[in-house]
Amino acid sequence: MRRFVADKATRLIKRHSTCSPCLVSHSRLHSHPPLSHPTLPFSSFPQSSISSSLSFFISALHPFSSANFNSMSSNYSTTPVTLQTINPKVLKCEYAVRGEIVTLAQKLEQELKQNPDSHPFDEILYCNIGNPQSLGQQPITFFREVLALCDHPPILDRSETQGLFSADAIERAFQILDQIPGRATGAYSHSQGIKRLRDTIAAGIEARDGYPADPNDIFLTDGASPAVHMMMQLLIRSEEDGILCPIPQYPLYSASIALHGGTLVPYYLDEATGWGLEISELKNQLETAKSKGLCVRALVVINPGNPTGQVLAEDNQRKIVEFCKNEGLVLLADEVYQENIYVPDKQFHSFKKISRSMGYGEKDISLVSFQSVSKGYYGECGKRGGYMEVTGFSPEIREQIYKVASVNLCSNISGQILASLVMNPPKVGDESFESYNAEKDGILSSLARRAKTLEDAFNNLEGVTCNRAEGAMYLFPRIELPQKAIKAAEAVKTAPDAFYARRLLNATGVVVVPGSGFGQVPGTWHFRCTILPQEDKIPAIASHLTEFHKKFMDEFRD
Amino acid sequence: MRRFVADKATRLIKRHSTCSPCLVSHSRLHSHPPLSHPTLPFSSFPQSSISSSLSFFISALHPFSSANFNSMSSNYSTTPVTLQTINPKVLKCEYAVRGEIVTLAQKLEQELKQNPDSHPFDEILYCNIGNPQSLGQQPITFFREVLALCDHPPILDRSETQGLFSADAIERAFQILDQIPGRATGAYSHSQGIKRLRDTIAAGIEARDGYPADPNDIFLTDGASPAVHMMMQLLIRSEEDGILCPIPQYPLYSASIALHGGTLVPYYLDEATGWGLEISELKNQLETAKSKGLCVRALVVINPGNPTGQVLAEDNQRKIVEFCKNEGLVLLADEVYQENIYVPDKQFHSFKKISRSMGYGEKDISLVSFQSVSKGYYGECGKRGGYMEVTGFSPEIREQIYKVASVNLCSNISGQILASLVMNPPKVGDESFESYNAEKDGILSSLARRAKTLEDAFNNLEGVTCNRAEGAMYLFPRIELPQKAIKAAEAVKTAPDAFYARRLLNATGVVVVPGSGFGQVPGTWHFRCTILPQEDKIPAIASHLTEFHKKFMDEFRD
Repeated sequence: MRRFVADKATRLIKRHSTCSPCLVSHSRLHSHPPLSHPTLPFSSFPQSSISSSLSFFISALHPFSSANFNSMSSNYSTTPVTLQTINPKVLKCEYAVRGEIVTLAQKLEQELKQNPDSHPFDEILYCNIGNPQSLGQQPITFFREVLALCDHPPILDRSETQGLFSADAIERAFQILDQIPGRATGAYSHSQGIKRLRDTIAAGIEARDGYPADPNDIFLTDGASPAVHMMMQLLIRSEEDGILCPIPQYPLYSASIALHGGTLVPYYLDEATGWGLEISELKNQLETAKSKGLCVRALVVINPGNPTGQVLAEDNQRKIVEFCKNEGLVLLADEVYQENIYVPDKQFHSFKKISRSMGYGEKDISLVSFQSVSKGYYGECGKRGGYMEVTGFSPEIREQIYKVASVNLCSNISGQILASLVMNPPKVGDESFESYNAEKDGILSSLARRAKTLEDAFNNLEGVTCNRAEGAMYLFPRIELPQKAIKAAEAVKTAPDAFYARRLLNATGVVVVPGSGFGQVPGTWHFRCTILPQEDKIPAIASHLTEFHKKFMDEFRD
Repeated sequence: MRRFVADKATRLIKRHSTCSPCLVSHSRLHSHPPLSHPTLPFSSFPQSSISSSLSFFISALHPFSSANFNSMSSNYSTTPVTLQTINPKVLKCEYAVRGEIVTLAQKLEQELKQNPDSHPFDEILYCNIGNPQSLGQQPITFFREVLALCDHPPILDRSETQGLFSADAIERAFQILDQIPGRATGAYSHSQGIKRLRDTIAAGIEARDGYPADPNDIFLTDGASPAVHMMMQLLIRSEEDGILCPIPQYPLYSASIALHGGTLVPYYLDEATGWGLEISELKNQLETAKSKGLCVRALVVINPGNPTGQVLAEDNQRKIVEFCKNEGLVLLADEVYQENIYVPDKQFHSFKKISRSMGYGEKDISLVSFQSVSKGYYGECGKRGGYMEVTGFSPEIREQIYKVASVNLCSNISGQILASLVMNPPKVGDESFESYNAEKDGILSSLARRAKTLEDAFNNLEGVTCNRAEGAMYLFPRIELPQKAIKAAEAVKTAPDAFYARRLLNATGVVVVPGSGFGQVPGTWHFRCTILPQEDKIPAIASHLTEFHKKFMDEFRD
C-alpha cells in the first residue's frame, strides 16, 4: 500500500499538465511543465524526488486517510475534485515541519493516551518546531497583562484591577487604546496595521539600528509567513522566475515558491565553516540559474539561521548587500530570530542597518525585513503577530503591496499590539522592568545552556557532527548513516534521514525533522532538533538520544 | 497626471506577457494572455476595464504616491522591481472596498484633523465596509471577558477577579484553557485549529442545522478571507478554470480569483425580484463559459447577500444544491452573515442543512461553508477569527487542504477561541445570559431599524430605487444617473458611480463604495452603503444624502 501511494504521487507529479475533468485541451496554455523540465529547481535538488513521494506517503499515515485510503477515496467517485484535477502547485508544495514524522507522533500520542504502556516512553517530545510555549515556556507577564486589558477595556477604571495588574501595564494599555481609532480593538485597522502602533515599531527599529525607520514602511501581518507569501506573490510571475534560497532552508520558502509557481534556486551553506554563506557560491548558483533561462528576482537570507543556527558576521552581511545591489536582486531578510543569540562572540545586525552603514539609502537597494512575535524570548506563536519592513520600492510598487494586503483587510489586532510591545518592552525605571528583565534573561540564558548541552550530546555520538547553535532555536546535526541503514530506508521507499527520525521517534518519543525536509548536500544526512524542551528534561533527552543512536548503529553498522 | 496614471495602467494590463528585466524570452511558457483573450472573465464583464484603470488611478491619491508620483518613482530607477516586472496577477487584482474613495476619505480625515473647518462636515462616516466596532458598536461583554482571562490565566485564581468578571466567563475560561494542550494560548495549535474548540464549533453547527457536523471538517482561519483564498488556490490551475460568482459580488472573490490566475464567470442577480438568484441564469452562464473553453470548478453563493442584502428562500437553495450536484461544481457558501437577518418572513438556512435535508450526504456533494467572527451581532473584525466547514472531499484532497493550512502553521488562538464562543454563546440559566441576550437583541433590532430608515431614505430620492436589506449589513441602491453626469464622469476618466460617490464624500463626509467595485448589469449604476453608523446618526445621514442628491440632480439633470 505504501508503494501504491508513493508511486501514485510520483505519477501525479509527472502528469502536471493534464486537466482531465475538462473536455477542452489546455495544453496550449498550460504553464506547468513536467518535473523533468530543465529550469525547474528540484531537478538540481536531488532530495526532492524522494521527499515528493514522502509528502504523499504521509497520506497513508494521516488521520483523514489512515483508515482505508483506497476504499474511502473510491466512495467519493461522484464528487468533482480529485488529486488529478487540483492545482498542481498545491500538489507540489511540501512542508516537512508538520509532515510525516509529526503525523506519526500525533498517532503515537493518541495511543499513549489510550494506553500509557503502549510505547517505551511516557510522552512525545516535540522537537520538530519552534513552538516554545507548547513545551512549557511561560509568556512574558507584562505583554499578557497589556493584551488582557486591551481585550476588555472596561476593567481599566476598576479599583480591583490595580491589585491584579502592574501599574505600567495599565498605563500602557491606556496608551495603546488611545492609539487605536475609536479605541476599537474589535475593528478592522488600516491594512498595514494601526498607524500609531507602526510608529512605535518604527521607533523600536530606529533604536535597534541607529538609522531612521518609517512607519509607512511597516506592514503588520499574522506572523511572518503571510508577509513572505505576499512578497513571493508580488515577485513570481512564472516558473521562470527564480528565488535564491539557502540550503538547508526553512521550508516555508520552498513551500511558498511552489505555491506561487516559481523556481527555488538553491545556494548551499558551507557546513564545514559553521554553515558559512559564501558569495562565490551565490555567484555560481546565480550564473547557473541564468544559464538555464531563469530570471532570478530575489535572495532569501535567514539570519540567525533556520535550521542551521549560525549568526552571520557583519563583514559577510556587507558582501551580501553588495551582491544584491550589483545583481539587482531584492534582499528578503528573515530576521525573526534577532533576539535569539547565544554566543558572546556574535551579535545580530539587521540588513537594513548594514546597508545604511554602507551608505545605501531608500533608493539604492530593495530590502524586506521579516520579524515575528513567535520567536525571540517571547515565543508567542499562537498570537500570530509580525511585520515586514519594506524599503527600496517605488511608490507604485508599494501601492501594489498595499492593495494585496487590503484584500485580507488587516492582521489581528492582538498580534499588532504584541508586535508593538515586543519592539518597545518595559524600560529601566518602569514598575515591570525588573520582573520583565528577569523573565527575559531566564529564558535566553536557559536556551543557551540547552543548546550547548544538546550540541555536546550530538557531537559525542558515533558518526555525528553538530555545529554550535549561535542563535535561533535549532541544532542541525549531520549523521554518517551506514550503507546498511540507507538500504533499509530505500527498501521502505523513504529517505534515510526520515528512516532514522522515524526510528528515533518510535524508540524515544522525540520528534525531529529529517534534513531532507530542509534540503542538504546530496548524499549527506541531517535532522533538525529544537533546543526548546524545558531545561530539566534536556539530560533525559540527551541520554535517550545516545542510547537510541548506539542501538541503531549496532543494528546497521556495516 | 490622472490621465497619465489611468492610461499607463491600461497599457500595463494590456502588456501582461512582457518580462522585460530578463534577457530570456518567456513567451513560450507565459501563461497570461492579454485581456482581449476570449476566455478571460472581464471581456464579458464591462465594468472592469473602467475599474481596472480606477484601481491605478488610486495611485494618484494614495499617501505613498500623492506627493509627486512621477519624480518619486523615477528616483527608484536603480531598484529592480517595477510595475512592468511584478506578477501581472497582482496588477490585475482589485479590491474596491478599500479603494479610491476610501483613500480620498482618509485624506479628508487628515485635513479635518488639521483644520475642522476645511470641509462642509465635521466627520468622515465610513459606510464603505462592514466594520461595526469602528462606528461605535460595542463588543459582546461575555466574549471579551473570556478572551481577556484566556490572555492572562494567572488572574483566574485571584479573588479580585470575581469582582471584575462574571462567574460564567471565569468558568468558561477555565474550560477553554483545559481544552488547549498545555493550556498554552501562546503556542501554535493543530493547523486546523485546536481540536476541542473544533468540537465546540461542530456541536454549534449541529445545534443550528439539526444534522451532524464533524470537527475534522472544520478549518479555523484568520477571518473568512484566508479560507476563501485556500479554496481558490486548491481549485484554480490556470485562467481556463472558472468560478461562478454572483454579480454584484463581494470583491474578495474577484480579487482572489485574479490573484490565483483563474477566471471569474459572472452570473447576474435579478434586481427586479429583490436580487433573486435564477437557476436559468446559472445554466446560461455555465454554458457560455463552457463554450469559451472554460472548465468551471465551483459556484460561489453569498447568503445573506453582500452587497445585496437578500436572504435566499429554502426552495431556491435546494435548486442551487441540485444544480451544483448535477453540474459537478463545488458549492462555496459564504454564510458569514448567518446571524444578520432583519425581516420576519426570512430565515437563514445553511447550505449543509439544505443538502442534508435533501438526502445528500458527505459523498454526494462537495460543499464549503465560510463563517467569520467579524459579522453577526458580534462584529469582531479585528480579532480575525473564522472557519470553513469542508464536506464532500476525499481524504487525499483533505490531506492537500491540510498541507496548505500547515504552511501557515495555524490561525491566531484568540480568534479560534472567539469562533468557539460565537458558536456556543451563553445559554438560558447562565449568569451572563440576560445581559448577553440584551446586548445581542439591542444590536440586531437596531440594525433592522437602521436598515429600514436608510432604505426608505434612498427610495425617496429622485431616480433611486433600493431593495430592502433582508440580511447582512448593506443596502445597494440603484441610481438613474443623468447623461450629463455620465459625460462629466467620463471627462475625468472615472466610472459614473465612482463620480457620484466621490461627490457624495466631498459634500457630506459619507463614504460609500461604487457599484462598479462589485460589478453590476452594464449601464446600471449603484453604490453600497452599510447600515452600521450608530442609530442616533442615521437621521442626519439620511438628510445629508437627500440634500446632496437633490443638488447633484439639479446640477446634472438633462
